[in-house]
Amino acid sequence: MSRPVTLFTGQWADLPVAELAATCAEWGFDGLELACWGDHFEVDRALADDAYCRERRELLEQNGLGCWALGAHLVGQAVCDRIDARHQAILPPEVWADGDEAGVRERAAERMKDTARAAAALGVPVVTGFTGSAIWHQLYSFPPNDWAQVQRGYEDFAERWGPIIDVFDAEGVRFALEVHPTEIAYDFVTTRKTLAAIDHREGFGINFDPSHFEHQFLDSAAFVTEFADRIYHVHIKDSIRHLDGRSSILGGHLNFGETGRGWDFVSPGHGDVDFEALLRALNRIGYQGPLSVEWEDSGMDRDWGAPDALAFVRASDFAPSTLAFDAAFAREGS
Amino acid sequence: MSRPVTLFTGQWADLPVAELAATCAEWGFDGLELACWGDHFEVDRALADDAYCRERRELLEQNGLGCWALGAHLVGQAVCDRIDARHQAILPPEVWADGDEAGVRERAAERMKDTARAAAALGVPVVTGFTGSAIWHQLYSFPPNDWAQVQRGYEDFAERWGPIIDVFDAEGVRFALEVHPTEIAYDFVTTRKTLAAIDHREGFGINFDPSHFEHQFLDSAAFVTEFADRIYHVHIKDSIRHLDGRSSILGGHLNFGETGRGWDFVSPGHGDVDFEALLRALNRIGYQGPLSVEWEDSGMDRDWGAPDALAFVRASDFAPSTLAFDAAFAREGS
Amino acid sequence: MSRPVTLFTGQWADLPVAELAATCAEWGFDGLELACWGDHFEVDRALADDAYCRERRELLEQNGLGCWALGAHLVGQAVCDRIDARHQAILPPEVWADGDEAGVRERAAERMKDTARAAAALGVPVVTGFTGSAIWHQLYSFPPNDWAQVQRGYEDFAERWGPIIDVFDAEGVRFALEVHPTEIAYDFVTTRKTLAAIDHREGFGINFDPSHFEHQFLDSAAFVTEFADRIYHVHIKDSIRHLDGRSSILGGHLNFGETGRGWDFVSPGHGDVDFEALLRALNRIGYQGPLSVEWEDSGMDRDWGAPDALAFVRASDFAPSTLAFDAAFAREGS
Amino acid sequence: MSRPVTLFTGQWADLPVAELAATCAEWGFDGLELACWGDHFEVDRALADDAYCRERRELLEQNGLGCWALGAHLVGQAVCDRIDARHQAILPPEVWADGDEAGVRERAAERMKDTARAAAALGVPVVTGFTGSAIWHQLYSFPPNDWAQVQRGYEDFAERWGPIIDVFDAEGVRFALEVHPTEIAYDFVTTRKTLAAIDHREGFGINFDPSHFEHQFLDSAAFVTEFADRIYHVHIKDSIRHLDGRSSILGGHLNFGETGRGWDFVSPGHGDVDFEALLRALNRIGYQGPLSVEWEDSGMDRDWGAPDALAFVRASDFAPSTLAFDAAFAREGS
Amino acid sequence: MSRPVTLFTGQWADLPVAELAATCAEWGFDGLELACWGDHFEVDRALADDAYCRERRELLEQNGLGCWALGAHLVGQAVCDRIDARHQAILPPEVWADGDEAGVRERAAERMKDTARAAAALGVPVVTGFTGSAIWHQLYSFPPNDWAQVQRGYEDFAERWGPIIDVFDAEGVRFALEVHPTEIAYDFVTTRKTLAAIDHREGFGINFDPSHFEHQFLDSAAFVTEFADRIYHVHIKDSIRHLDGRSSILGGHLNFGETGRGWDFVSPGHGDVDFEALLRALNRIGYQGPLSVEWEDSGMDRDWGAPDALAFVRASDFAPSTLAFDAAFAREGS
Amino acid sequence: MSRPVTLFTGQWADLPVAELAATCAEWGFDGLELACWGDHFEVDRALADDAYCRERRELLEQNGLGCWALGAHLVGQAVCDRIDARHQAILPPEVWADGDEAGVRERAAERMKDTARAAAALGVPVVTGFTGSAIWHQLYSFPPNDWAQVQRGYEDFAERWGPIIDVFDAEGVRFALEVHPTEIAYDFVTTRKTLAAIDHREGFGINFDPSHFEHQFLDSAAFVTEFADRIYHVHIKDSIRHLDGRSSILGGHLNFGETGRGWDFVSPGHGDVDFEALLRALNRIGYQGPLSVEWEDSGMDRDWGAPDALAFVRASDFAPSTLAFDAAFAREGS
Repeated sequence: MSRPVTLFTGQWADLPVAELAATCAEWGFDGLELACWGDHFEVDRALADDAYCRERRELLEQNGLGCWALGAHLVGQAVCDRIDARHQAILPPEVWADGDEAGVRERAAERMKDTARAAAALGVPVVTGFTGSAIWHQLYSFPPNDWAQVQRGYEDFAERWGPIIDVFDAEGVRFALEVHPTEIAYDFVTTRKTLAAIDHREGFGINFDPSHFEHQFLDSAAFVTEFADRIYHVHIKDSIRHLDGRSSILGGHLNFGETGRGWDFVSPGHGDVDFEALLRALNRIGYQGPLSVEWEDSGMDRDWGAPDALAFVRASDFAPSTLAFDAAFAREGS
Repeated sequence: MSRPVTLFTGQWADLPVAELAATCAEWGFDGLELACWGDHFEVDRALADDAYCRERRELLEQNGLGCWALGAHLVGQAVCDRIDARHQAILPPEVWADGDEAGVRERAAERMKDTARAAAALGVPVVTGFTGSAIWHQLYSFPPNDWAQVQRGYEDFAERWGPIIDVFDAEGVRFALEVHPTEIAYDFVTTRKTLAAIDHREGFGINFDPSHFEHQFLDSAAFVTEFADRIYHVHIKDSIRHLDGRSSILGGHLNFGETGRGWDFVSPGHGDVDFEALLRALNRIGYQGPLSVEWEDSGMDRDWGAPDALAFVRASDFAPSTLAFDAAFAREGS
Repeated sequence: MSRPVTLFTGQWADLPVAELAATCAEWGFDGLELACWGDHFEVDRALADDAYCRERRELLEQNGLGCWALGAHLVGQAVCDRIDARHQAILPPEVWADGDEAGVRERAAERMKDTARAAAALGVPVVTGFTGSAIWHQLYSFPPNDWAQVQRGYEDFAERWGPIIDVFDAEGVRFALEVHPTEIAYDFVTTRKTLAAIDHREGFGINFDPSHFEHQFLDSAAFVTEFADRIYHVHIKDSIRHLDGRSSILGGHLNFGETGRGWDFVSPGHGDVDFEALLRALNRIGYQGPLSVEWEDSGMDRDWGAPDALAFVRASDFAPSTLAFDAAFAREGS
Repeated sequence: MSRPVTLFTGQWADLPVAELAATCAEWGFDGLELACWGDHFEVDRALADDAYCRERRELLEQNGLGCWALGAHLVGQAVCDRIDARHQAILPPEVWADGDEAGVRERAAERMKDTARAAAALGVPVVTGFTGSAIWHQLYSFPPNDWAQVQRGYEDFAERWGPIIDVFDAEGVRFALEVHPTEIAYDFVTTRKTLAAIDHREGFGINFDPSHFEHQFLDSAAFVTEFADRIYHVHIKDSIRHLDGRSSILGGHLNFGETGRGWDFVSPGHGDVDFEALLRALNRIGYQGPLSVEWEDSGMDRDWGAPDALAFVRASDFAPSTLAFDAAFAREGS
Repeated sequence: MSRPVTLFTGQWADLPVAELAATCAEWGFDGLELACWGDHFEVDRALADDAYCRERRELLEQNGLGCWALGAHLVGQAVCDRIDARHQAILPPEVWADGDEAGVRERAAERMKDTARAAAALGVPVVTGFTGSAIWHQLYSFPPNDWAQVQRGYEDFAERWGPIIDVFDAEGVRFALEVHPTEIAYDFVTTRKTLAAIDHREGFGINFDPSHFEHQFLDSAAFVTEFADRIYHVHIKDSIRHLDGRSSILGGHLNFGETGRGWDFVSPGHGDVDFEALLRALNRIGYQGPLSVEWEDSGMDRDWGAPDALAFVRASDFAPSTLAFDAAFAREGS
Repeated sequence: MSRPVTLFTGQWADLPVAELAATCAEWGFDGLELACWGDHFEVDRALADDAYCRERRELLEQNGLGCWALGAHLVGQAVCDRIDARHQAILPPEVWADGDEAGVRERAAERMKDTARAAAALGVPVVTGFTGSAIWHQLYSFPPNDWAQVQRGYEDFAERWGPIIDVFDAEGVRFALEVHPTEIAYDFVTTRKTLAAIDHREGFGINFDPSHFEHQFLDSAAFVTEFADRIYHVHIKDSIRHLDGRSSILGGHLNFGETGRGWDFVSPGHGDVDFEALLRALNRIGYQGPLSVEWEDSGMDRDWGAPDALAFVRASDFAPSTLAFDAAFAREGS
């Protein structure tokens, strides 16, 4: 049996969830990874109103859709980040409040604990999201970094997320960091350091999204193999490099989709990600969770793209073998 | 005749300039690009003490060395940067003072004007250096950037550097920005925007250093061809990529020389830079200034490396042709 | 909405247009780019007989087909070419006449003017075609070229095509040169020179066909980006390189399809052209005209290939985005 | 008309042939390449029982399937091999008998002659299979090989297979060696030597399988072009390389499908084989026999894979052209 | 012992041979490949004046130089070419005469016979040169070629050069065509056809120059291996590709050295030619003739370049092994 | 200080050691890695004759040469191998004796113990060599391997080499396996298994030779990084791939140097090995032992090659840095 294919609703938050659910059902998705913004999944209402989670479940069931994960990227980002005006645009007003850095971080952390509680209430085992990072801005730094300060960034992460993961553990829900530039972990080295910083707690794992690896020249299949026991959720998203000697791999301070960027996000199957190798690796490690399409392509109409992406995943996601090789071949002499 | 080969003294500032000059003379360099830190070239003393510049000249002459540029990277960095603790480590105490951001920027700008005056006093036509950047930290940003703010970064640069370049113009000296990540310009797109922001003033040009282009997958020869009339100085420095699927091109929050980095600086000729193509392009655009070795290689002894680098440049820098192709070949019938 | 997909009828001129139109309709094409040879579109009859254009229109309409361009490659070729026996095989007898070079060129030019008039009569806004070239044979020359003579080739082109474009302008029709080896423009450099020679007149633009760029190692997406305002029509045709160290990229004086050629034309999607990048670039520049399949593959049955090509274009040509990236994503805080 | 697509039944010998035939018919295969083991095709029964071949034919016909080849890999392997315990597992008990090397080889040779006779009785023109090799173990040898002994390996092959091919000739059947590591021929050089050793007899040809060429970095299209007159049968099977600097192309003494192997077999279309180039070459040489899917993929469920493979072949195998290029294009002037 | 390294004097014909010989001796060349133009080697004077050849020999000997070949490219070019104004610039006046095509070809052919006689008089065993070609202009042709006419080009070559080679045979001298675009042979396929056309006569062989192969993507080592028995002379010349997606491999109707060309000639060791592989192949086929530097680099001063080229060849041209591999290693047990 | 550069004498065993030592001294080598065959270093005489080791030391000292390792490849090979006629050619007669497999293995194991004793007597801390392998012939096997038998190969190795390493430990000498196809370890995977099989005993380490990794597509720098604490000795030897689509990476049952092989050994610096990366990795792991040139190149005269190789190593082997990066750069503010 193949894995369920879901749509992450974060990029569709301008649509009411009821409308989006109907559309996704029509396209043939198996479920939704509900974003915790817009009206898709409201953590505060879920905790305040006993009926809320039941109604969401009913909405999904009426459309024949499942839900295996919530997406809490926006609030999670504020937990470790240095806070500035950009955060106001993505945070709920009550988390932003007066925008004071320490307060924002603290309120964001509390909201993440509530998200674990709400996920449990909804009956969803995984929350995907971001952690933010106190040291991302030190990626390529001049004047030179104080490397001890970089190390302190991992410690800061552990201090802020430890208590959050305590609540996840208590609720029987797991957090899955989307390994991603701008977060505390974004490649092999930083993921190793991040997992070590938090003592390899089982409550803290990975939402693997290959689109963030391709422009870093990282091997997605090797990553899921190395971190096999922490792959809790998988995004299907693609990216492509345009390296013609004039476009920087760093992005050139250009928005996605602008001419001259050295790489860009594209609809799954339209980019450089080797999904065949990734899916074979997921087969080998026994990953059975959803494949969740996070659809972002600044050059494609999203209503053209989402069903195209779904068809691509269906055609790419094959069942693993249940026979040993040559088992049938070599039985003559027996 | 080939171009002069100089050593940029910035990475040797732990040595007294007198000692370094003697060593470079022995190695066979043609001159020094004097750093404006350590005791190599002190801007304040040059302006305060009439004898200072004469003594520096004499020191160079005694060692048979020329000087075609001063390097003012450290102070220049503070002009546009958001100021933090890292800057204290690289700024003169009187520029840092109380470390207040607005004041540091202002004092740094004034010191850059003084640097133009000091260069004129020394008789040196070019000052190389950094500009800093108010927007570098927005390179890859989540929450998403406000793109209008990115645009304001170029305007901020123009406002701060315009008055500085006025002094350069008045002194008959030119400033050459080392196009470099962490600066306002670091690739083709950002250089175009930077030069436009400052109205393509002749006083503001480029110190081209290919080591910052290789890890961005940019074509150094194409760059000097496009910006031919603004190439005022050239650094010879190399870098190498290590892309094995486990090492990120972004650097992994690792210091230079650490295992696992996706790229690193190396001694010239030991990396990926195509110096042949670069030197041919410099020949074509008629660049006649120095080739200045900026030596940085965290895996090589610098006393082994500097003469190795010099020998590499000597062997690579050939004279351009003075004959039209086939001129000799095709004259039979005349 | 996607762009219309048409078939260029030039390679099917052995079939009566009525038969071909019925077949194309059955395959599902949106229209035809009618070749001005065979019985597909006869310029002389269109001008002489008032009913002719109406009948052609009716034929198309009966088959549910549109027409956005005429193809006038054969006659156009003779305008600038050095004339020899090869031209007799492709020219109408009345244009060839006695085959005298000056006369052939002159009659070809007049026929091109008539083609503009006939296109207007038919109500078609674009005529695609070739220009010929007085200097193509000097591509790789020994004895060495007289480079002034090469320059005169561009002037010759401008002199011959200027009066033709006058008629196009008068008729409100535009000419679209298929940039192509053997023509006055075949790459970036020669296209720049060609457009400059004819003063960037709006009546003279480009029929872009990527199959002529791939074997030259040229970037099709970069080309349509650079010449965005002159892309008047697009051919969908593919080519493939076979570079095994024994086969020359120059073609080896071998006909298409022969073993040993270093490259060959193939059915769209079966070769090296990066159509995804090309179509994204066409989206970015706002090209809304037809995608016209010019089907040539010496190793494939054309009746197998044409519908295969159509299916390929339908699957590849997606609608551009109408949303700014992250628009939905980042609205939480508002 | 396209070529028939068959399934080689060797990897499905755990299923009764009646069941497999029904399944293949449902999937849409055109026929079966029957393996001479399991109950698929039993050589001894075919010769002993007049009804056997008729019943097999009827079974195929009832399922609308054809048969163009028998597969006799297991017994053929023992003809030239150095015999050890591995052979007992693949040989019929009566061929293995006491396992004495000389006897096993002799009995295997006799069985191959019987296979020719049985193929004739069934009305099948080709038997595919292996030859074994007395020198395979000398592939990479230390202590160094005695190269005269390597040469004697080809002679040994010729001596053992000459009499077998005599019977094939007499029966009007041809043997097609699957060129394959572990066999006397596995690349260009060894195939040339093998065909020379057996005097280029027409009764001895090739079953071409590209999956054995890809991990050797060999050009499948070039191979079928060079040995065009000996391509008697074609397998459709794919393989993929995983060369990440830690995985050896030699395979690492790892079984197929284990993490760390430098290459692996995969379902057709999922690997590195350039089937487009191969099929074009087969078109050019006029190969009209079956394309026989030999399905092996240790990471995919075979019931998912076989119909996926069939669809891939159907989409890839196009009819060659029956027109000369430009024939239609260039007829204007006639 | 290594092979002699000579300089082909064709690109230095603006210098008197006496001056050039002295310079080359100083640089350390072993000899000169004398061009038959300028005052380097004058065929008519050599046949008319008994002293001429003796004086040339003395000049060489006084400078310690040998001579293993004459270069007769300019006149040879006119034998098969379609004649136009370009030829007047490269031909001696008496060969050009009135410029009538048939006459020029005939006089050029006679001069080539004289060149054989003069080479014999000088005691030089090889004449290198060009053949011209009646079909070069049909390389990439639209309107489509008449392929029978292409075939006639090879026959035309054989008819014109057969009588010339008769004289070479009679004189005991061999002609070595520099396989080169613009000539009758320029790649594998055309060389095969050319040698076949002239019946593989021993008097007609090849002057191999790898610089003409690199931009065609041809394998130089494979070429000298295939045509081993016809490699009579070798040029050392290099070329480099600049394929950045904007520069055509066809050259763009640009002169050598212009920005935007897709490839260019460069000094040996500065380009893409794999000289190591070429020299190993020459070792394997037993080539013992000179390695003759044909120096052309439009971006390098020739007086800097020629000695650089010589040093490159000396460092690259190693002696072949005289021992069988493992001969020493494996002798313990004897 | 750089590392000593030695020559491994194994391929020069046809020369008396006294002659070879004098030649190597003249070439400038720092020492010899003495082969335990020919008269270079005779284990039996070293144990039997008290003067023998002293005389060898004196010979080396007289030539200014050091010795850091003995090479015992030939006898070591027989410890685990399946024994056949090839071994007679490389073993001392008293080890071969009657050639009975069990006896040969046992005598070879005893001779390896004696080699440890002789190395101690000579004062040499490392013995390099081979182990042989009981399972090498199962590399690519058909009929399929019994994988339990493969596993038993590692156990067989451990059983045979454990007692040998006991003697090495007792003598204070370490054994360094040259990881190499045909041995128990030849890549990453098999080295991990081999070291695990022998319990990571310190007495058993690695003689790293990159020439055996290049044709397997393995990353030499990554290997020495992973196995840093077991790199006891390093060979400098190169290999090159010739993958033109006709030559198999498996070697094609061709001897080294034959046309058509897919890879070959070549003199250091003439092949594909990335020595820069390897030497940087050796710097990082702190390897301070010799770089021992094992010279094998079937296409080069060894007397030309050995000094060329020495010069290559001298130019490539630079000293590591003793300064932290930016240490000098960033000291202004202090």
